[in-house]
Amino acid sequence: MTDQEYMELAIRLAEKTEGQTSPNPVVGAVVVKDGQVVGFGAHLKRGEGHAEVLALQMAGEKADGATVYVTLEPCSHYGKTPPCANLLVEKKVKRVVVATVDPNPQVSGTGIARLKEAGIEVTVGICEQEAIQLNEVFFYYILTKQPYVTLKAAMTLDGKIATVTGESKWITSEEARADVHQYRHKHDAILVGIGTVLADNPTLTTRLESGGKNPIRIVLDRKLRIPLDSKLVTDGLAPTWVFTNSEAPLEKVKKLESVGVEVYQIGTDLNHVLRTLGQQEITSLFVEGGSQIHGQFIEKKLVQQVITYFAPKMLAGEMAPTFSGGNGIKSLANHLRLEFVTVKQLGPDIKIISKVLEG
Amino acid sequence: MTDQEYMELAIRLAEKTEGQTSPNPVVGAVVVKDGQVVGFGAHLKRGEGHAEVLALQMAGEKADGATVYVTLEPCSHYGKTPPCANLLVEKKVKRVVVATVDPNPQVSGTGIARLKEAGIEVTVGICEQEAIQLNEVFFYYILTKQPYVTLKAAMTLDGKIATVTGESKWITSEEARADVHQYRHKHDAILVGIGTVLADNPTLTTRLESGGKNPIRIVLDRKLRIPLDSKLVTDGLAPTWVFTNSEAPLEKVKKLESVGVEVYQIGTDLNHVLRTLGQQEITSLFVEGGSQIHGQFIEKKLVQQVITYFAPKMLAGEMAPTFSGGNGIKSLANHLRLEFVTVKQLGPDIKIISKVLEG
Repeated sequence: MTDQEYMELAIRLAEKTEGQTSPNPVVGAVVVKDGQVVGFGAHLKRGEGHAEVLALQMAGEKADGATVYVTLEPCSHYGKTPPCANLLVEKKVKRVVVATVDPNPQVSGTGIARLKEAGIEVTVGICEQEAIQLNEVFFYYILTKQPYVTLKAAMTLDGKIATVTGESKWITSEEARADVHQYRHKHDAILVGIGTVLADNPTLTTRLESGGKNPIRIVLDRKLRIPLDSKLVTDGLAPTWVFTNSEAPLEKVKKLESVGVEVYQIGTDLNHVLRTLGQQEITSLFVEGGSQIHGQFIEKKLVQQVITYFAPKMLAGEMAPTFSGGNGIKSLANHLRLEFVTVKQLGPDIKIISKVLEG
Repeated sequence: MTDQEYMELAIRLAEKTEGQTSPNPVVGAVVVKDGQVVGFGAHLKRGEGHAEVLALQMAGEKADGATVYVTLEPCSHYGKTPPCANLLVEKKVKRVVVATVDPNPQVSGTGIARLKEAGIEVTVGICEQEAIQLNEVFFYYILTKQPYVTLKAAMTLDGKIATVTGESKWITSEEARADVHQYRHKHDAILVGIGTVLADNPTLTTRLESGGKNPIRIVLDRKLRIPLDSKLVTDGLAPTWVFTNSEAPLEKVKKLESVGVEVYQIGTDLNHVLRTLGQQEITSLFVEGGSQIHGQFIEKKLVQQVITYFAPKMLAGEMAPTFSGGNGIKSLANHLRLEFVTVKQLGPDIKIISKVLEG
């Protein structure tokens, strides 16, 4: 087995924990001694052991003289757990193979330096692109202190999300709708406008066959119109946070808070909202509409990824609602630049994943 | 070489003539004697020899006892040329392999029957699906007496064909725009609404590196607003046909006719227009907008194929024009049903070809 093959195993371990480690990255580790795997681990949950710690525990005394493969640079600071770099030195491992360095410019390279000082052989950059991709959301969050934003839209081939009369259930197939729940599971929070709450009274929870984690539910609600009997307020299935104005009626704020809803009276400006979410350790945000909200995210270029599902249907209609409303970008040269990353068939529908390019 | 391999060669010959044989189908033929190809041909142009005739000419005396592969059932009637079935009998071929029968229910099978009566061995159905696909447009036209309609749209991922201020040059890449010209070349006619003429003053000609055939240019212009100095009226690059009302001002009709424009005063109802185009032997119609016209074709379900180009861009805007305007289909259950046939990357853009399903 080559370095690359062991690192690929470490990446496979890490990727299975997507959605459960926030605000920490996903990390996998494999310990190899004399050509045999003697330990492996992955970071499972915030506050619990790092991947290297679990892998070294499994290896026990065999860690002495072993090679450790880890998808992210071992930490060198005292956080909720002691530094992993120290533990690797303590356990007398011979060599550490790292896929990618820590993205935080203030600590990047310090874990590797610690290992080298202790005489451990260090190799960096095996499967680097894949490891960066794996923690794309975490890296973005660390560098910007704001959540990585993904817009989702399900529409007809001619771009409609409903008929001219407002009928929208369902445009896309069961397969596409089930796929959306994977994203809910993997995101820290889901955001909708008050229009969507008033129109659909959604739960915004994750409904996967295997269960799944519910995201925090965030509503932009300038005039605090959210009904006290709406599911987001009453169902208790996940936290609900409402962003509203400072002039929102105090009585309603108190009523909402008394049933557990968190009310942020900082207004609904998207820049402020995203900064606040970042401070609250929301690393990833899934935006599910409606049209006005999508339009704002696009106009302000506050999007990192777009997930689109196209159904093999056409509805036409000048007044039929589309994925992205709002005022719109006025100049074509100023469009939001994307790159198509994957295109695939999902049941009868086509799913396109796009990343937003800089500038 | 197997029957299938020889038939594939015949299909390759036929497909290279797409766009030049209308209102006739594309047909290819290969003559094989003692395991050697001794003749091949394709129908090149209306009024000229059929594929089998050209292939038999090339074979000369070697046709005696040979096998002839032909992509469409040989004709048995006297049209602009004598029946091919008779010629095959006359030349004493031993065996005829046919990909698919004639689509016209009134003559389907009669060519094959003639061959069998003469003692020629006949095999039908080799590469049948490919042969039907090859002449999809012709088969549709023969069965319905109306042109096969293809809608084209170039838009952003969020379904906009221009910004809220109307800027639209260019949404898609050069590669996508060049691809459109292949379709103009292959279609008998291209159709736009008067709005597109007034806004863009287009030529609607085919601009391919290799030249290409210009389609007949059709304008739906209820109030006969087409400017006498518009390119479609003055450039003389291809015929221009204008559909307008019976109350259109006679003087303007006469002026247009005096410079070669054909004016059809039957109104702009799409059903009437398509029937009329069918009577004029227009087998294929390429609809290039705008939004209102597309909306009408979709609402009335008068479309057979949709070519969409998506650029990796987003513009948003409730008022930004979309591919398909008009009144729209009111009930979701009544949507225009499509099937995605091919999805491919074209430069930075994604091209999706969809076929319309029945009912």
